[in-house]
Amino acid sequence: MRVDAFKLPTDGPADVRGLTALLDDGVVRADELVCVLGKTEGNGGRNDFTRDLAMRALEDLLAPRLGLPPARVQDRVVFSLSGGTEGVVSPHVVAFARSGTWSEEPGPKRLVVGTAHTRPFTPAEIGRMPQIVETARAVAELAGELRLAPADVHLVQMKGAIPRADHEAVLAARRARTPLRNDMVHSRAASALGVALALGEVALADLSDDVVCDDWSLYSGVASCSAKPGLQRTEILMFGNSDRATGDLVVGHTVLKDILDVDAVRALLAELGLPVTGGQLSPEQRAHVVGVFAKSEADPRGSIRGRRHTMLSDDDIDDTRHSRAALAAVLASVVGDPCVYVSTRAEHHGPLGGGPLAIIARAP
Amino acid sequence: MRVDAFKLPTDGPADVRGLTALLDDGVVRADELVCVLGKTEGNGGRNDFTRDLAMRALEDLLAPRLGLPPARVQDRVVFSLSGGTEGVVSPHVVAFARSGTWSEEPGPKRLVVGTAHTRPFTPAEIGRMPQIVETARAVAELAGELRLAPADVHLVQMKGAIPRADHEAVLAARRARTPLRNDMVHSRAASALGVALALGEVALADLSDDVVCDDWSLYSGVASCSAKPGLQRTEILMFGNSDRATGDLVVGHTVLKDILDVDAVRALLAELGLPVTGGQLSPEQRAHVVGVFAKSEADPRGSIRGRRHTMLSDDDIDDTRHSRAALAAVLASVVGDPCVYVSTRAEHHGPLGGGPLAIIARAP
Amino acid sequence: MRVDAFKLPTDGPADVRGLTALLDDGVVRADELVCVLGKTEGNGGRNDFTRDLAMRALEDLLAPRLGLPPARVQDRVVFSLSGGTEGVVSPHVVAFARSGTWSEEPGPKRLVVGTAHTRPFTPAEIGRMPQIVETARAVAELAGELRLAPADVHLVQMKGAIPRADHEAVLAARRARTPLRNDMVHSRAASALGVALALGEVALADLSDDVVCDDWSLYSGVASCSAKPGLQRTEILMFGNSDRATGDLVVGHTVLKDILDVDAVRALLAELGLPVTGGQLSPEQRAHVVGVFAKSEADPRGSIRGRRHTMLSDDDIDDTRHSRAALAAVLASVVGDPCVYVSTRAEHHGPLGGGPLAIIARAP
Amino acid sequence: MRVDAFKLPTDGPADVRGLTALLDDGVVRADELVCVLGKTEGNGGRNDFTRDLAMRALEDLLAPRLGLPPARVQDRVVFSLSGGTEGVVSPHVVAFARSGTWSEEPGPKRLVVGTAHTRPFTPAEIGRMPQIVETARAVAELAGELRLAPADVHLVQMKGAIPRADHEAVLAARRARTPLRNDMVHSRAASALGVALALGEVALADLSDDVVCDDWSLYSGVASCSAKPGLQRTEILMFGNSDRATGDLVVGHTVLKDILDVDAVRALLAELGLPVTGGQLSPEQRAHVVGVFAKSEADPRGSIRGRRHTMLSDDDIDDTRHSRAALAAVLASVVGDPCVYVSTRAEHHGPLGGGPLAIIARAP
Repeated sequence: MRVDAFKLPTDGPADVRGLTALLDDGVVRADELVCVLGKTEGNGGRNDFTRDLAMRALEDLLAPRLGLPPARVQDRVVFSLSGGTEGVVSPHVVAFARSGTWSEEPGPKRLVVGTAHTRPFTPAEIGRMPQIVETARAVAELAGELRLAPADVHLVQMKGAIPRADHEAVLAARRARTPLRNDMVHSRAASALGVALALGEVALADLSDDVVCDDWSLYSGVASCSAKPGLQRTEILMFGNSDRATGDLVVGHTVLKDILDVDAVRALLAELGLPVTGGQLSPEQRAHVVGVFAKSEADPRGSIRGRRHTMLSDDDIDDTRHSRAALAAVLASVVGDPCVYVSTRAEHHGPLGGGPLAIIARAP
Repeated sequence: MRVDAFKLPTDGPADVRGLTALLDDGVVRADELVCVLGKTEGNGGRNDFTRDLAMRALEDLLAPRLGLPPARVQDRVVFSLSGGTEGVVSPHVVAFARSGTWSEEPGPKRLVVGTAHTRPFTPAEIGRMPQIVETARAVAELAGELRLAPADVHLVQMKGAIPRADHEAVLAARRARTPLRNDMVHSRAASALGVALALGEVALADLSDDVVCDDWSLYSGVASCSAKPGLQRTEILMFGNSDRATGDLVVGHTVLKDILDVDAVRALLAELGLPVTGGQLSPEQRAHVVGVFAKSEADPRGSIRGRRHTMLSDDDIDDTRHSRAALAAVLASVVGDPCVYVSTRAEHHGPLGGGPLAIIARAP
Repeated sequence: MRVDAFKLPTDGPADVRGLTALLDDGVVRADELVCVLGKTEGNGGRNDFTRDLAMRALEDLLAPRLGLPPARVQDRVVFSLSGGTEGVVSPHVVAFARSGTWSEEPGPKRLVVGTAHTRPFTPAEIGRMPQIVETARAVAELAGELRLAPADVHLVQMKGAIPRADHEAVLAARRARTPLRNDMVHSRAASALGVALALGEVALADLSDDVVCDDWSLYSGVASCSAKPGLQRTEILMFGNSDRATGDLVVGHTVLKDILDVDAVRALLAELGLPVTGGQLSPEQRAHVVGVFAKSEADPRGSIRGRRHTMLSDDDIDDTRHSRAALAAVLASVVGDPCVYVSTRAEHHGPLGGGPLAIIARAP
Repeated sequence: MRVDAFKLPTDGPADVRGLTALLDDGVVRADELVCVLGKTEGNGGRNDFTRDLAMRALEDLLAPRLGLPPARVQDRVVFSLSGGTEGVVSPHVVAFARSGTWSEEPGPKRLVVGTAHTRPFTPAEIGRMPQIVETARAVAELAGELRLAPADVHLVQMKGAIPRADHEAVLAARRARTPLRNDMVHSRAASALGVALALGEVALADLSDDVVCDDWSLYSGVASCSAKPGLQRTEILMFGNSDRATGDLVVGHTVLKDILDVDAVRALLAELGLPVTGGQLSPEQRAHVVGVFAKSEADPRGSIRGRRHTMLSDDDIDDTRHSRAALAAVLASVVGDPCVYVSTRAEHHGPLGGGPLAIIARAP
């Protein structure tokens, strides 16, 4: 079992020339593709159609090669596209392919990737313990399948469920005086807490419906969760290092204290065998970095390092765009490459104002 | 002659409480104030009225203390306010006060600051050699007054002239087939080249009307020029280090190659006695930094580090906002303080995509 | 008792030349000024500082003429400035001055204007019956002072209270399981329902805490409420027609079914003696119109006239800006003048997607 | 020869369900489709990818039904998609199908539609007489093919050429001191003047390179031109009324004096047999309207009806978005339907601040 990954800059949301070349040249086989993560140049908001355009282009590319109709491609390959290439960020995708079988003998730990999903949720479960517990179950099961101890899991990318709520469900919630939390904020929050529970970052005893979006000391340092209205079950994509995997890639993670936590970035790079001597990786080191994935947001308390920020009161530019621009620039300045992936809205993802960072690199 | 400087966070564009306290407490006398530089939380564009609001508040504060009507305050104190606190940037001002007389004996070089202005320009002169040469003359004269050798000048902040052009001037230019360049782009460009000429960064022989906005290899590494429609003459504010000054502040500068040039930032800090050991100044070091002033813009060639950026084709967010967010985050990540001043539009200010950076700090 | 009103275009938020001329020329006396309503060219959102700039300019103008410090001017003159001049809207203010005494004999009904305020509210009262009932009491009392029957009240402009909630109040609300509604949405909603109750638009029996922001069939057709964090009590400004007033102005109102309800606009103009013969008032008719004041918002159900609109899912432009641009253009197209005042966020102001419209004009 | 047209609301840029149903139900045959015009919900700017997404969806729908690869569909069917559904505008497309043959006998005039293109242009020709004259030739030829006298042409929708300019062309232009005008502004301007010349709206004697973007008294009242970088030749789509056509549709046009020119809209509707009695078409009349197509922009002189507007100095929202929101609301208020098509940037399209309006309706 080995995982290969390819960083592919794009000329626009519909640009799939990089992946096409890999497939045409036989570097990657379509049926080996596990997922494509990437940044497209929309606003990352509700009216960001660049992700749809990118997915349509990927589906059209892969459908004939997988022998599937375009609408079925995503049953086989996970697309995790995040809109918003603010500031220096360069639109790109990272494609992951898996091949071979598990080694019988342990070796140096190498990157593995796998996918899973939860059972379907009801609207009343979202943002509450049932979502957390079932998410934790699915995450733990997937880690087991991938032969990963909790400490070897470094990135859990999820699309969280937000089932459609019919009128009866809304009324039932009102009668029960337990308002539905079937929204993006609570779905993301519970997804992250589910990861934290599965990996031992928080204890079951510390969790309850009440802590969701309330006790910010509880968080995951490896989750990266979005949420999608209409999705019945949560889709899970996990990256970790296994001693039964081969290949030349490894993944590591850290937790940023805040958007300016450049020392955490450097420490993580050092762990991955890429110590920064000046302020930035050397060109040789930089060539080892395949993917940089962060999750963060503007500190909701309105300040950073004791200084007021204005991201949350700007009605011209959404705070997600402000904070992506800032964190991405910091990450790019250390790595020396503006192909970084920063996603926002980070409830229970790292401490308030901070967030998880995972880097995938060639082993030294 | 000593210069003192005070970094004052603000709660809004009209917040002058920091400066009020300094004046009320006798730390600074109104007649010692030379200039106030700062960032306000507008969009930095044509409809950014936060600068007007801030100036009005400063005028109302200073007028009675200077014994002047509010409308005359800016004849005595230069306000250089830049809109746009994107990303992590924290709204703040830095106030500079000058007191005492020149030392008779040379000592360690310390910060001096002074102001001057050019003669009035005609619309036909803007963006051409007459503006460049006259700007150079005024800059050189001011350096002389401040007893600064060219190498001791580290920041020349200017508001460039854009005289009102009457109909006759427009027609004359059309007849002469020399279109007026009486606009912000060309005024900023010629201002910067004027500084470069005065300080020996470019040679007179290399300059002509044709190189303006054409030969980008010619630039200043210390200029920071804006331009203001209706202004007849260019206003100049100069910061440098003189061995006849006292006080405890020094200024240094560098030229960033691009927005991600974190090594240049670190080298400049080291020059100022603040070497960065990890990725960021220590809290003790950080306390020495009084002002961080950069000028830059999105690389007009559409890429950075060989990667496409999308700042120039975003019709929802101006490229100035994108690039300020990015560069300011990088600077703040090294200094560890989000009170940084980044101004955009940088024709002939450093190389394409890069720009000048000046830092004022307490001498070690 | 007569009210005079002056429509004054502005060149920018700080432009008070129109009002200055009126005062200098003796057309209006400062102590006769009751209120200044107007549109400034900000975004109308949290970071819109154009209103602050305009208020500062008005305070600086009026303070010496009222013999008050600037900070006390708003105790005497109400400023109701709304940011956002989208589309064709032209920045302007309308200044209202009151002079003389009540007529002893009834005559034709003419414009009166008056101000009042509620008692201070506690955070727990906001958005609930106590706010509604007290608002109704204050509105009814003011109508009585102005000798106005409910049917003669045509515009009640209010700045609603949002008291600062301390930590104890928040905890108390949590313990009582009655979440605080101390926010802009609920404050505006309760303000509007208070007006509706005072004027008989809704019955007390139909009101309860539960209907606020839930039963949209309950609304006022004359309210125009904003809300201001930190305000303890609600400030009220009332316009109506009294047979004991003199002068040449009258006010009328209607309720727009939706943003495209041009027939309601025409019917109101006809009531005011300004029947539209083609599609637009004639220049002579237009000269009679002094102020056009509307309150509306994008239909929260996401459609208008059975067609989907995209105002609510646009993350680049706030829906308030979209809907102001649209309604203001419709109003301006009928009146023939882009000096119209449209304010947004309209909970319980007219039916969903519609809203109140008041016009002040010279009697024919 | 008859033309049928179908107004199809969309749920998103990729929604082709309306057209799919028409094709599946046999109402329209794919090979009868001439063009699809429509509004998508992007920003209408450089980073508006909703048009690409819509075109991709249309290509995927039509390719198998036309027996063509997706990339060739646009050789057969013209897609004219305009981004930007500001304010009340509802995303929709209007599909036009042509069938049958010309009548031998004249009858009542009915809608015809046809397509053509110019010869390829060189970069040096754009924005100058060669582009104007060749555009006029192609327009006149197409009118002849469609058996239309100039007065019977009511809408000429064009995508104007902007050939790629190589370095040599740029240098040649510099040597000749005739700067290239190979940009969107000049291409649109020359396209519109070409239409005006072909249809006798301006005389050849009045045209020269110098009048382009200079003499705004010269304009077309039926042109609606965009421009597309990389396009070698201009694509033309013409709508008019012919007495040899059948069907039940007619087209008419007018020229709006400005964005508020509601009387011109009403006069055009009356011409089409749809006189407005109140302020808006009745539901029965409204059902006759198939397409409303306008071209306009914010008055570049900065005012409308003698009042200052702020569309051109807003750095948060592009003036194209402001002006589309305003004009579309005005049109929708008269027609009573928010499915209107307004496109912006209107050099030599109607007078400054105004623009052409065409309406397609069922004959009464």
